[in-house]
Amino acid sequence: MAESEALLNKQALMTEKAGLGKLFSPKSVAVVGASREKGKVGHTVLRNLINHGFSGKIYPVNPQAKSILGKKCFPSLLEIPGEVDLAVFAIPAEAVVATFEQCGGKNIPASIIISAGFKESGRKGASLEAKLAQKAAEDNIRVLGPNCLGVIDTSSSVNATFAAGMPPKGNIGFFSQSGALCTAILDWAIGEGIGFSKFVSLGNKLDIDETDMLRAMGEDEHTEVILGYLEGVKDGVRFLEAAGSVTQRKPVIMLKSGGTEAGARAASSHTGSLAGSEKAFAAAFTQSGIIRAVAIEDLFEYARAFSSRRYPKGNRVAIVTNAGGPAIIASDAVERSSLRMASFEKETIESLRTSLPPSANVYNPVDLIGDAKHDRYAAALEAVLKDPNVDGVFVIFTPQAMSGPEEVARAVARCGSNGKPILPVFMGGPAVEGSAEILSKASMPNYRYPEPAISAMEAMVRYETWRARPAPEYKSFSVDKKQVQRLLEEAWASGQTEIGEYTAREIISAYGFKVPGSVIANNVSDAEFIAEKIGFPVVLKIASPDILHKSDFGGVRVGVRSREEVREVFHEMKERVKRLLPDADLWGISVQEMIQGGKEVIIGMVRDPQFGPVVMFGLGGIYVEIMKDVAFRIAPLSIDNAQEMVREIKSFPLLQGARGEKPVHIEAIVEALLRFSQLVTDFPEIYEMDINPLKVFPQGREPVALDARLALKRNEVSQ
Amino acid sequence: MAESEALLNKQALMTEKAGLGKLFSPKSVAVVGASREKGKVGHTVLRNLINHGFSGKIYPVNPQAKSILGKKCFPSLLEIPGEVDLAVFAIPAEAVVATFEQCGGKNIPASIIISAGFKESGRKGASLEAKLAQKAAEDNIRVLGPNCLGVIDTSSSVNATFAAGMPPKGNIGFFSQSGALCTAILDWAIGEGIGFSKFVSLGNKLDIDETDMLRAMGEDEHTEVILGYLEGVKDGVRFLEAAGSVTQRKPVIMLKSGGTEAGARAASSHTGSLAGSEKAFAAAFTQSGIIRAVAIEDLFEYARAFSSRRYPKGNRVAIVTNAGGPAIIASDAVERSSLRMASFEKETIESLRTSLPPSANVYNPVDLIGDAKHDRYAAALEAVLKDPNVDGVFVIFTPQAMSGPEEVARAVARCGSNGKPILPVFMGGPAVEGSAEILSKASMPNYRYPEPAISAMEAMVRYETWRARPAPEYKSFSVDKKQVQRLLEEAWASGQTEIGEYTAREIISAYGFKVPGSVIANNVSDAEFIAEKIGFPVVLKIASPDILHKSDFGGVRVGVRSREEVREVFHEMKERVKRLLPDADLWGISVQEMIQGGKEVIIGMVRDPQFGPVVMFGLGGIYVEIMKDVAFRIAPLSIDNAQEMVREIKSFPLLQGARGEKPVHIEAIVEALLRFSQLVTDFPEIYEMDINPLKVFPQGREPVALDARLALKRNEVSQ
Repeated sequence: MAESEALLNKQALMTEKAGLGKLFSPKSVAVVGASREKGKVGHTVLRNLINHGFSGKIYPVNPQAKSILGKKCFPSLLEIPGEVDLAVFAIPAEAVVATFEQCGGKNIPASIIISAGFKESGRKGASLEAKLAQKAAEDNIRVLGPNCLGVIDTSSSVNATFAAGMPPKGNIGFFSQSGALCTAILDWAIGEGIGFSKFVSLGNKLDIDETDMLRAMGEDEHTEVILGYLEGVKDGVRFLEAAGSVTQRKPVIMLKSGGTEAGARAASSHTGSLAGSEKAFAAAFTQSGIIRAVAIEDLFEYARAFSSRRYPKGNRVAIVTNAGGPAIIASDAVERSSLRMASFEKETIESLRTSLPPSANVYNPVDLIGDAKHDRYAAALEAVLKDPNVDGVFVIFTPQAMSGPEEVARAVARCGSNGKPILPVFMGGPAVEGSAEILSKASMPNYRYPEPAISAMEAMVRYETWRARPAPEYKSFSVDKKQVQRLLEEAWASGQTEIGEYTAREIISAYGFKVPGSVIANNVSDAEFIAEKIGFPVVLKIASPDILHKSDFGGVRVGVRSREEVREVFHEMKERVKRLLPDADLWGISVQEMIQGGKEVIIGMVRDPQFGPVVMFGLGGIYVEIMKDVAFRIAPLSIDNAQEMVREIKSFPLLQGARGEKPVHIEAIVEALLRFSQLVTDFPEIYEMDINPLKVFPQGREPVALDARLALKRNEVSQ
Repeated sequence: MAESEALLNKQALMTEKAGLGKLFSPKSVAVVGASREKGKVGHTVLRNLINHGFSGKIYPVNPQAKSILGKKCFPSLLEIPGEVDLAVFAIPAEAVVATFEQCGGKNIPASIIISAGFKESGRKGASLEAKLAQKAAEDNIRVLGPNCLGVIDTSSSVNATFAAGMPPKGNIGFFSQSGALCTAILDWAIGEGIGFSKFVSLGNKLDIDETDMLRAMGEDEHTEVILGYLEGVKDGVRFLEAAGSVTQRKPVIMLKSGGTEAGARAASSHTGSLAGSEKAFAAAFTQSGIIRAVAIEDLFEYARAFSSRRYPKGNRVAIVTNAGGPAIIASDAVERSSLRMASFEKETIESLRTSLPPSANVYNPVDLIGDAKHDRYAAALEAVLKDPNVDGVFVIFTPQAMSGPEEVARAVARCGSNGKPILPVFMGGPAVEGSAEILSKASMPNYRYPEPAISAMEAMVRYETWRARPAPEYKSFSVDKKQVQRLLEEAWASGQTEIGEYTAREIISAYGFKVPGSVIANNVSDAEFIAEKIGFPVVLKIASPDILHKSDFGGVRVGVRSREEVREVFHEMKERVKRLLPDADLWGISVQEMIQGGKEVIIGMVRDPQFGPVVMFGLGGIYVEIMKDVAFRIAPLSIDNAQEMVREIKSFPLLQGARGEKPVHIEAIVEALLRFSQLVTDFPEIYEMDINPLKVFPQGREPVALDARLALKRNEVSQ
């Protein structure tokens, strides 16, 4: 199966865009397994195609029927007279495999396999799916599914699903790895009148996957907001690349589940124990500008705001309200968020003072008082939207006697042309239903509570910040790649998969990391001599490829201050090895320069099966181990990525020089991260790696890597 | 005004329950300002009283009318023939003051003042309100408002508000400091069919406040869940006491706003800069078992779950679903929460295997597969509810072809009798509306998404944990209170409001804190002699009441190791004072035992104007200053409070002995917190206080307070 999948991936890459056009806008559709029986999937699919305005040809395929729902029936795909752009399969899995080759015979470029009973159902299904994949690849047929709900495209009026309805036309494209989530969301969309451009259930992703969808929707003129639900991605690197480019043009909002994987990885490094697929996804989303929805509700609330296509240029917001309490609640939520309450210009305050009664509050939040009608809302909104310090506005309305919710809604709707986002919060039930409809027609989603509107505004600010950022810059250092290649080959040759300090320091040295001066001494007098040359105090360490956890073994002694002490410790360490690990290969005792002062940081990497090298940064010791105060990004790191990582950790103030200390040289850490990124990108066989600690200092003194370790694994995870 | 308020508070306390019965269940109600004109408040109030089934007498009061809405009108309260239990005022503020005394004349025990134009409108209104308060106190009349929406009581069919409707009968009691929030919530409740017992708008809280409401609803047999919105409390201590007792019987869910107060307090201590009214409220809610809603949505979603009155005995939950995707999303959300996915007993798995098709997943989450009908839901729910490892269940349903949402809802509703909470998540729009209604009738709130259901279940677990906890124990230490009294009086007498180390150490010593041995030396030879007696190394410090920030001044030297060094440092310090602060009162140089080893913690207190002494605990240095990793509770602390504080901080593992260190003696810290609590409770004039650092050690060695400071303020904030 792995081989056929590889083949298929290759084919999919070659014909990247072929076929998806026919999937969304076919001129003719055949339904294999079309049925006369109501409630059967093959019946519902056919009915959905017929009933929602599709203007192309529809061919039911069923050897047992002459015609279904008024359409002439054909015994097989091959007997259909005209061209077929899209074949939809709604027959049992075994039958699909038998019938699918007719697609090749008929030159059908696209297919949807709705049928279940494939990979998701166990080994037998998986083998059926592999056969299907091979055929699809051979005949160059794009496949959606199997085990999916199908496809809806509102602009071409195609509803090739067995769902119970058709959403209104709109600018949201949605794809989902869960068919059930599709049905639930479809039902909501219909209930709330939320418009969609495309609606796709991915199913088992035999061929067409999230990356294909991202690209197709990225290029689709009817789609202005992309929404997705994922449980995993088929090819992380390809997905990231596509996402990074699509998010330049359109917002992409994703809900990703399956994030908790407690102890899934037996970790041999700090980074390994703290990273995980959840962290990799989070980093990937951040780095490619994807807006992450944490809950299903976010997916909706964000989509509603984004679909208005009015994005804030900054995070300064105003609140206009007819009620004090809800405005206080909203202001609190703003303060807790990354948004800030705008300070109005003098002109704004003057203008508000002129148009509002004296008891109104003309500062932010602007309180129009309970008896406010539409005119006050209109005047206040106009003034506030004009203010250059305001990037977005929340309009709060609570039903009051005589306040005319619908007129207020109309007044708010009229202000939409200003370009700044307005998120209305008309609170209540039946009293504000009419308002919600009026607002919705003006592309202003109404929110029932202030908090989700605030989250949505935050998401929009994040997106605008992403879009406005300069193109990422990468830096390539001149390094000794060949030396690392040689060292890793030697390790492989000797069967080593874990590489400890001695080889690891050579590896990182080749990539420009400074390491402490250190020489392995074979006898006491050498050790004394070297220590004297290096200068006291020194560090003594057992040097053995068989002892990786030197500290735990008692194989590290810092602060050795004299020839006598060197002598003493040297003998003690040799004795300890002889006694406890008599078979260990003892290279000698290493005498090392003692690096005093500075702060300890840790730089690490673990290779994620989907996204590749996930780089970690944090402050050494308890900050990493207990506070878990670390930042992740996927390599290769841009300069901005590295800058962000250093600033993202909570303990960043410690590097800036808290408590009167000199600040650490941040740019030196950034450079270390970039060099590290280059190393782990250059060598995919490095599976896990820690530089721990890296000692960093105030400007003028280079960082020094005191220890490093890495683990190797060949090919299995290379992308 | 302050005096009349104090008088009123006193009176309110004396007649705690008097009048509130008449407010909620009057036999007769007069509406002062009843109006014939539609849309006027005085008209709406009268109509609401008449239209919602109130069986008592209704008296419109209006000198200009003969009758309104078919009720005979009276020119004044005094001319009403029978007794009046409740007077509702809907006339301008000035007129209220003039008319209010008729209540006294007529012996009316309760009143609602709907009219605005009082304290909220400025100085003039505040003086009107003060007059009203005085009259109410003199005549012993309970007052709700002014500036409020009024009161609804569904069990006595009283709707004395100008709101647009009446909520269904139910078991939720709601009170709110914001009238607008009332109208919005009322409208929702009506739209979604959520039942209320009482619905109260507090307004300006001239008399009746949140504590009165908490008590009244706590005793009300129709109220099983109490919901509230607060912007502040009138008397924190009284509120806490009431809350602590009510939450033993009924859940109390509160939304508190106005939490952000950046820099409101000019802080002179660490604790002062980290504590604040927001922290005090959070601690108060925790300590009195109030469930805190962070967003308006929580208030609802929690209330819906709690109103079923089926609470989980633990945090182990099961998920039963007909769809994989939403179940994965839900499991993720469970893992992120304080809930845990239950592990089923063998019998449960066997029973599920027997009743479900082979493709179903019989482990948690139980996946019934897309074609599941009500029978599978019933069988699975029955099995799962029986399992002793399951404390609560989420039932997820997504609309699928032929799945019969309403039958499934009925099957779920039938399982309600088991006693364990079931929170249904029927996802979708129109397709599940019927189900939601069926579930609602069986006291099962339907949730549109899994995440809010999970939050609601968490809140219920927290509540059950609170209810099941043993009664709090307090510990009183035998201390030298008189000594502290004497020291504080001396400080007052000399005009000191900030007390530094020398007096502070005497104060904490009197409460059982160990302090380092220390003697003030007046000359060099004394200093040398004392240092030798104490034993080297020692700490030398400038001893002056005028130099509080000794370290910053360069007035502390640790690790002084010899007589020579003592001599040198002594001269240096004296010189420094002479040069820089020639007028300072220099007591001498203190020679102090140097405490080596141990960990530094900080214990502090700042007095909150509403709740009194807020005690803080954290690890010293960067943990407090940069990571802001601290815990708060309001004193007096129970033993459990102190235990929780130590364990609540993120850096707790450091005290437990991370990285191979010996654990610190936690009980010694708990005792220190309790002694500190006793001290700040005994002396309300201590306004702010830090013991920083307190050095703590492994078992066997007592903590030592290295430094302490406190600030005094008299009476202003004493409760």
